[in-house]
Amino acid sequence: MKNQEKAKQIVAQMMEGDAFSQWLGIEVLIAEVGYAKLTMKVRKEMTNGLALTHGGITYSLADSALAFAANAHGRLSMSIETSISHIHSVKCDDVLTAIATEKNCSNQFAQYDIEIVNQDNIKVALFKGTVYRTSKEW
Amino acid sequence: MKNQEKAKQIVAQMMEGDAFSQWLGIEVLIAEVGYAKLTMKVRKEMTNGLALTHGGITYSLADSALAFAANAHGRLSMSIETSISHIHSVKCDDVLTAIATEKNCSNQFAQYDIEIVNQDNIKVALFKGTVYRTSKEW
Amino acid sequence: MKNQEKAKQIVAQMMEGDAFSQWLGIEVLIAEVGYAKLTMKVRKEMTNGLALTHGGITYSLADSALAFAANAHGRLSMSIETSISHIHSVKCDDVLTAIATEKNCSNQFAQYDIEIVNQDNIKVALFKGTVYRTSKEW
Amino acid sequence: MKNQEKAKQIVAQMMEGDAFSQWLGIEVLIAEVGYAKLTMKVRKEMTNGLALTHGGITYSLADSALAFAANAHGRLSMSIETSISHIHSVKCDDVLTAIATEKNCSNQFAQYDIEIVNQDNIKVALFKGTVYRTSKEW
Repeated sequence: MKNQEKAKQIVAQMMEGDAFSQWLGIEVLIAEVGYAKLTMKVRKEMTNGLALTHGGITYSLADSALAFAANAHGRLSMSIETSISHIHSVKCDDVLTAIATEKNCSNQFAQYDIEIVNQDNIKVALFKGTVYRTSKEW
Repeated sequence: MKNQEKAKQIVAQMMEGDAFSQWLGIEVLIAEVGYAKLTMKVRKEMTNGLALTHGGITYSLADSALAFAANAHGRLSMSIETSISHIHSVKCDDVLTAIATEKNCSNQFAQYDIEIVNQDNIKVALFKGTVYRTSKEW
Repeated sequence: MKNQEKAKQIVAQMMEGDAFSQWLGIEVLIAEVGYAKLTMKVRKEMTNGLALTHGGITYSLADSALAFAANAHGRLSMSIETSISHIHSVKCDDVLTAIATEKNCSNQFAQYDIEIVNQDNIKVALFKGTVYRTSKEW
Repeated sequence: MKNQEKAKQIVAQMMEGDAFSQWLGIEVLIAEVGYAKLTMKVRKEMTNGLALTHGGITYSLADSALAFAANAHGRLSMSIETSISHIHSVKCDDVLTAIATEKNCSNQFAQYDIEIVNQDNIKVALFKGTVYRTSKEW
């Protein structure tokens, strides 16, 4: 349990200083060691020239989920490689939820899957991220 | 030359309706068939809890470059798979430039490399994107 | 059930003509619509200059699992983008098992996760693949 | 020049112990620090159930090129994340050439692009790889 309390504290601290996640309107629903669940609502200013949500928005939500889930272990972790498949269109006013789960955690590297669903629980994006776990503690 | 004029028109039209690229402050330096060069300056609200630029910002710039380069062919093209390596930290006030080049263009799919450099011409991110080329014309 | 029988037939037919999967010694444990479980044993001739299994061997096993799971739907499907993280070393005589699960299946595209574990159930590689589902039937 | 001589030696040593690259029939055309050019001919036993070359073959050729180019620096380097787009079909008897070029080389990580072309200089696959550079010397 102590680890989970520390995980919550680290994520709260990250979120507090994270101006862009705040601009996105990200709300942290769950923050645990190696796991994070975030939600946000798409606003007009997040859409692109095709009247759809810019791919960078769903990526950013997933990337924050990756950072929170990985750093919640207590070791400063940096994203080194991420990929995302955009599989369903996202529109203005859609409510997105990202769930980051840990697929593997070695000493130096860890891998995460992040699924993003909309308000109808339809998957809109699949994200895979690898982080490098530095030796620095939070 | 007619193709390049049409490419410029399509990208101008995309950029005009692209609220998020406007929020990012993206400026289109070059827009050609299968090629795009964009620039933007990182603002405070684009940073994260580690006082660095959020990975979603560099991704978004690269994703816009991908969309412009691919759609400039005149056929509506949708990103289906993208990956990015964050290789150098990006700070507030950094000026980023993204260059999208076409690696391959088949009938249905096309692949692009996007390199992002900062004001000192140091590479900060490497992006690879695959698009699906629909049969719809712009 | 009829779909699952057809899935088995398609995979048996694919495996029969697949000279390289046969060279690898791949055995199909389970073949269902959107799902495949394969196993193989690493031989000396599959290792590299570091006395470890060549990364191409684990990739090949995963790629076969992807092909079987995707084509088992009955529509000819082609891999268009795949990625793999090698997370644990694989040695000669290791027995690898790949499990392909479907993350998403739209009309034209489908995404799969393939996990590869060794005989001690330790994950050795994480694979993600996107296929294009043609309109041709098996 | 001394670095390039050492690069050649390292790659020759890697190739000598690399049973799978030998099985593939890989020939090293050029081996330099951060660069490699390899070639091989596709044999019947490398094809799959669709009478095309198994995706694992082109991946393996690219993965060897990645390993050679990265390790030629003199520091033991391990692939941690790779992706490949199969963009053109490969047939039996095709002669493939892989060219690995370095996109970035930091202290701990390096990124490479590998392009694979056939005997008609048509691109058949695009590969991107990230390696972790250990502190061990060859």
